[in-house]
Amino acid sequence: MHNSVTDAFAETLRSRLPQAAFKDDTAQYAETPRGGKPGQIGLVVAPGSTEEVAETIRAAAEARVPVIPYGGGTGLVTGQVMPDGPVPLVLSLERMTKIRATYAAENVLVAEAGAILVDVQAAAEAADRLFPLSLGSEGSARMGGLLGTNAGGVNVLRYGNARDLCLGLEAVLPDGSVWHGLKRLRKDNTGYDLRNLLIGAEGTLGVITAAALRLFPRPAETGTAVMVVRDPDAALDLLALAGDIAGSGINAFELISGMGPTFLSETIPDVRLPFPDPPEWMVLIDLGLDAGRDPAETLETLFMAAHERELVSDGLIAQSEQQRAEFWRMREAIPEANKLIGAISSHDISLPISRIPEFIRTAPGVLEKLGDYRINCFGHLGDGNLHYNVYPPKGQSRDSRIAEKGDVQRAVHDLVDSFDGSISAEHGIGRLKAEDLQRYGDPAKLAAMRAIKDALDPLGIMNPGAVLPLRD
Amino acid sequence: MHNSVTDAFAETLRSRLPQAAFKDDTAQYAETPRGGKPGQIGLVVAPGSTEEVAETIRAAAEARVPVIPYGGGTGLVTGQVMPDGPVPLVLSLERMTKIRATYAAENVLVAEAGAILVDVQAAAEAADRLFPLSLGSEGSARMGGLLGTNAGGVNVLRYGNARDLCLGLEAVLPDGSVWHGLKRLRKDNTGYDLRNLLIGAEGTLGVITAAALRLFPRPAETGTAVMVVRDPDAALDLLALAGDIAGSGINAFELISGMGPTFLSETIPDVRLPFPDPPEWMVLIDLGLDAGRDPAETLETLFMAAHERELVSDGLIAQSEQQRAEFWRMREAIPEANKLIGAISSHDISLPISRIPEFIRTAPGVLEKLGDYRINCFGHLGDGNLHYNVYPPKGQSRDSRIAEKGDVQRAVHDLVDSFDGSISAEHGIGRLKAEDLQRYGDPAKLAAMRAIKDALDPLGIMNPGAVLPLRD
Repeated sequence: MHNSVTDAFAETLRSRLPQAAFKDDTAQYAETPRGGKPGQIGLVVAPGSTEEVAETIRAAAEARVPVIPYGGGTGLVTGQVMPDGPVPLVLSLERMTKIRATYAAENVLVAEAGAILVDVQAAAEAADRLFPLSLGSEGSARMGGLLGTNAGGVNVLRYGNARDLCLGLEAVLPDGSVWHGLKRLRKDNTGYDLRNLLIGAEGTLGVITAAALRLFPRPAETGTAVMVVRDPDAALDLLALAGDIAGSGINAFELISGMGPTFLSETIPDVRLPFPDPPEWMVLIDLGLDAGRDPAETLETLFMAAHERELVSDGLIAQSEQQRAEFWRMREAIPEANKLIGAISSHDISLPISRIPEFIRTAPGVLEKLGDYRINCFGHLGDGNLHYNVYPPKGQSRDSRIAEKGDVQRAVHDLVDSFDGSISAEHGIGRLKAEDLQRYGDPAKLAAMRAIKDALDPLGIMNPGAVLPLRD
Repeated sequence: MHNSVTDAFAETLRSRLPQAAFKDDTAQYAETPRGGKPGQIGLVVAPGSTEEVAETIRAAAEARVPVIPYGGGTGLVTGQVMPDGPVPLVLSLERMTKIRATYAAENVLVAEAGAILVDVQAAAEAADRLFPLSLGSEGSARMGGLLGTNAGGVNVLRYGNARDLCLGLEAVLPDGSVWHGLKRLRKDNTGYDLRNLLIGAEGTLGVITAAALRLFPRPAETGTAVMVVRDPDAALDLLALAGDIAGSGINAFELISGMGPTFLSETIPDVRLPFPDPPEWMVLIDLGLDAGRDPAETLETLFMAAHERELVSDGLIAQSEQQRAEFWRMREAIPEANKLIGAISSHDISLPISRIPEFIRTAPGVLEKLGDYRINCFGHLGDGNLHYNVYPPKGQSRDSRIAEKGDVQRAVHDLVDSFDGSISAEHGIGRLKAEDLQRYGDPAKLAAMRAIKDALDPLGIMNPGAVLPLRD
């Protein structure tokens, strides 16, 4: 059904796009952060404008060449590389990085899809506003990919996913037409919600080229604490208590198991740990409060109330911006440590929030039947989102146990499914989980997804094999 | 392409659904709140379960009979009646009114589509939680219709539209399959966003049968004020100032032109007005604050700061729950007064927030060229959403001027379009604005919408003619 990129196709594209759009050094586009089989690359183009993106898609449609939309390359589910099948065209948004406009009074900013997240955050800050999307890869992740995968991160509890931060889109649809949907309106009930359909579709229904994004007032006062909690039940009770005491001011509420600091000690020992002996469970709480409220005092009140209820046994409240940054550095270095340790299988799951402790109690027993593992469980407790990653015991290499990956993933996802959870909370489906989505997904929804894909991309050229498996 | 309901079809349905599902008295299903040509009714069924809804849809698909999903009948854009074409089946959700479950610790409630909004609000309150969707028709509007039209209301500024309050859906798709999507997860990136596609599709892509809804903590302290503002520019400045002073605690920020109280005096004189002479512009501000903050004091501070900047000239802060209710009663009686006066044309529009004053200054001059009108402009300023309604001068009847409706609507919508606004902010498209959507909508989006409709509802039986016009 599809054709590989050929010399003739490359010639056609060269006749339609300026020379600057063609990338010579293409090796980096074949790799993903978690390794695995590299992607095939027929050609990498980086259009300089929406019209050039449209031109590219039209050429690919004429030639039936698969197109892989490419942002910062930070995706964790192999949505940005195509290791098998016909050799695709990689369409990188890296040259479309403009902040097209900032409307501070409206709390709106319009960014092109290639804008890097930290640059969008900085543009918001320059207008005395906050763009709250924040995650480990923010120094390289680009807005198009963040929206295409509906990225999450640490501030979802308060501000929502990427989806919730987007008011409007401009996108090139699979037929090469351009949807001019960059309205910066809070309310717009004019027909089907194409915006939310493209967000999270991982480039399979079109290429996002720009977005109107929501900004927020910068919280007047911020504060951060780490607290040692008795167990995940206590962490949940602490979250509820924090809601009572800090109201709507909780930016982030992160659960960290003892394996996180243990891995950090083993791999990145210069990361400062708040407690000398890694506690079995701790939480990181980040507050952003209105003017006139004192975060340190609020966190102190919270700690005292939690201590009285025997939820927490120890805690530290950041006394400076530097200490605050250290707490966060500890949290954000965990994925780096994980990578250095080398997981057999990593799972980005979500659960009904009240069932998280039960899941955490149950899962180790299920995995024990398969072998001996180290489990690093951490994540965004306030969103019901855990990163539940499984490693070999200390001293064993990832490679020596990688054959168990399939069984481990299946066991974890089966358990998640039985808890009415999700096998993809914030990373997306990509190619890594496309089969699992078929297994665990609702049949009526899967049929509707296939019908939508066939309707909007009848040639199937947009990121084939991501989200929905290739047809036989 | 479609068939009217026949006796044979009615027989088929009677053989598949229990007797209780058939409504004898069907006249009410033909009328809409704003009058106009009544709908045709072949048969009204009110299934008692999701499976009965699916059975109904399957029967309609077999017979190619159009189906009109029917909630509380409060829609303002004629989405719930079909005045022309084949005689449809009306599918009322009125017998599916259960609150299936409440998860207070997770801030989630699962309601059936027929649940009336006030009952959902009450169920949330019984769990010491808030379901913040609130609008004039909340005593009869049902959840399925509210989600189907992505309803707005007075608390969107803080809590979002109906869309933002829904975590999961159960729905019957046009082929009669049931999508079991009632997950109560905050993060779930498993494939295309079918939830947001059905929300706002106005029953044209399936029938919502139940929803998992987001709840919130009840604000500890509430307070309300009305303030006389110099003009819409001053109202916008006051909104920004309120953000600085009250932080994230602003529930609602409503703009009311002098025509509102004038209409109330003329039609519902027992509604208490806060100021004896209707001011040209006033705003109603509603706050919900965390524990320990005093809303009256905050509103006082806001008024003083605004007075110093010459934004406001007079103001009242509610001193009791009764006075608070009176302020709100004034706001919510305006649509009732409008109905008694009788509009030539009503417009539910949204605009980039910072351009609202300019729009309000410009529009009367445009309308002046068409005739002599009274304009009642009011709405949810914080969301950029105005209700811009046009009436004959005092003493003239609606009927004597109704012939101008098309020209007036066109003039207002043309102006909205030139301001990069939306011709439907919170009411939807229905049949009333289906042609205007074709006129003002983005061509690529319209083509995508048509492709999605054809893919999910190839027989075109679901609410034909709503959102997308019937094909020739």
